[in-house]
Amino acid sequence: MLKKYCQEKMQKIDQTLDGLLAGTNLYPPEIFEAMRYSLFAGGKRLRPILLMAAADAVGGNGEDYIKVAAGLEMIHTYSLIHDDLPGMDNDDYRRGKLTNHKVYGEGMAILAGDGLLTSAFEVMLSEENVSPKVLVQVVRDIARAAGALGMIAGQTVDLASEGKVIDINTLKFMHQTKTGALFRAALESGARLAGGGPEKVEALITYAEEFGLAFQITDDILDVTGTQEKIGKPIGSDERNHKATYVSLYSLGEARSMAQTAVDNALAALDGFGREAEVLREMVKQLMTREK
Amino acid sequence: MLKKYCQEKMQKIDQTLDGLLAGTNLYPPEIFEAMRYSLFAGGKRLRPILLMAAADAVGGNGEDYIKVAAGLEMIHTYSLIHDDLPGMDNDDYRRGKLTNHKVYGEGMAILAGDGLLTSAFEVMLSEENVSPKVLVQVVRDIARAAGALGMIAGQTVDLASEGKVIDINTLKFMHQTKTGALFRAALESGARLAGGGPEKVEALITYAEEFGLAFQITDDILDVTGTQEKIGKPIGSDERNHKATYVSLYSLGEARSMAQTAVDNALAALDGFGREAEVLREMVKQLMTREK
Repeated sequence: MLKKYCQEKMQKIDQTLDGLLAGTNLYPPEIFEAMRYSLFAGGKRLRPILLMAAADAVGGNGEDYIKVAAGLEMIHTYSLIHDDLPGMDNDDYRRGKLTNHKVYGEGMAILAGDGLLTSAFEVMLSEENVSPKVLVQVVRDIARAAGALGMIAGQTVDLASEGKVIDINTLKFMHQTKTGALFRAALESGARLAGGGPEKVEALITYAEEFGLAFQITDDILDVTGTQEKIGKPIGSDERNHKATYVSLYSLGEARSMAQTAVDNALAALDGFGREAEVLREMVKQLMTREK
Repeated sequence: MLKKYCQEKMQKIDQTLDGLLAGTNLYPPEIFEAMRYSLFAGGKRLRPILLMAAADAVGGNGEDYIKVAAGLEMIHTYSLIHDDLPGMDNDDYRRGKLTNHKVYGEGMAILAGDGLLTSAFEVMLSEENVSPKVLVQVVRDIARAAGALGMIAGQTVDLASEGKVIDINTLKFMHQTKTGALFRAALESGARLAGGGPEKVEALITYAEEFGLAFQITDDILDVTGTQEKIGKPIGSDERNHKATYVSLYSLGEARSMAQTAVDNALAALDGFGREAEVLREMVKQLMTREK
């Protein structure tokens, strides 16, 4: 069931993204080519799917908010392009493909990221299946989550921590902001767009926080136990880069157990929901068996 | 009169920007310091002043839309930080001060730009003195103007043209997008926020286009005739960087005459306005005598 749901939603998201960045009137073509390259580089579309699943979970129809969902994926993609730049992590590969700046050069990669981030707001603010009042609130919250108090705070701490020993609290702050803030925005936005009441919204925020934690811990585990073929980059890169992770601060067994606790907490947060939240339940459970 | 108006508005804008990026709860402090550095590096606040003057010109009160105006300045500032990066123009100085990456390093400068761009949308969408419906439209148009079909298109052409001979049409496209699009968005937004009718909005768009052209030509002229002390960077840098400008494609006399024509056209666009557009008239006229 989850697989079919995700495939259907991915197709809708890809169609939407494709439609936004296609056409013969797009000039200059280089910038659109560079934006498309990373946008269609094999992302799992996790954030937009979570947004739509949250809307479904409060009784709405997630696909009604496809433009806000697509905007989230554009924001996520921009952050990866800039994160890979020589001045940041200086990575050559992502998901088994050359990073944006390795293909298009550093200047174009900076602009492709800027273009995706800026256009994400244009796209989100084009959503017509919701009142302007709710749209303003939702997009403002997404901007906050992606901004200097959210995702960018995490990237700043990440950059400042390179090669340094950091403690568990710093690691937690980094993850809550760098990846957690956008997961939280995805769930909260989906719930608010579909008119979910305060209790449901709060429950989904708790789910998002636990989901984000489980995602990050299993990501750290994969960097040690995964295969390059599946995760698309050399394994053991965190250790070589002296990055603090759940696996460097804890044993593999402890990390697995912490991930399981987060999954259980996420499931518990959904106690007040019925069948309509089944996709969200399956999504967090599968983190424990992810291979990429 | 113009000087007093600009001083008053600058003070309001600076207060607003300062309030947004101050406070002891802002963590990590490095990112906010880097954002503030460029935001308070001596900008003339031209875009937010134009937005407020346009609102005044259609009978509104520009200061009612200070958050949208401040957002425009944040977008402008982010574009300068990224433009100066080693992967782009690789500039060491801007307005007589070290560029962001020379002070904070390349990674932080990328993040400071990203932070300003993202937070600009949060700030603009916090504006409460206008209906959500108009706010959605205005902020969406600003995103479009700053995006891959606007400002970023111009930066892409600029990057791709480095060291090449470009013709006047390419130069015009580059300026209309790189600097023109945001000027246009400033005037159009101000008019729409204050409820200006279609005719007034159209007239102010024409004014904006001619203002942008006059601004760019006089900018090119200053690069030849200005003093380093006043413009804050070495003069003749365009020629050394083999940049096509109005002064490299035309004589200084021809360039001055083209600037004057643009100023005259901008003034003509304001024919249907009375005293309430006097600030806009003075703003475009003073471009002919600008020293920085």
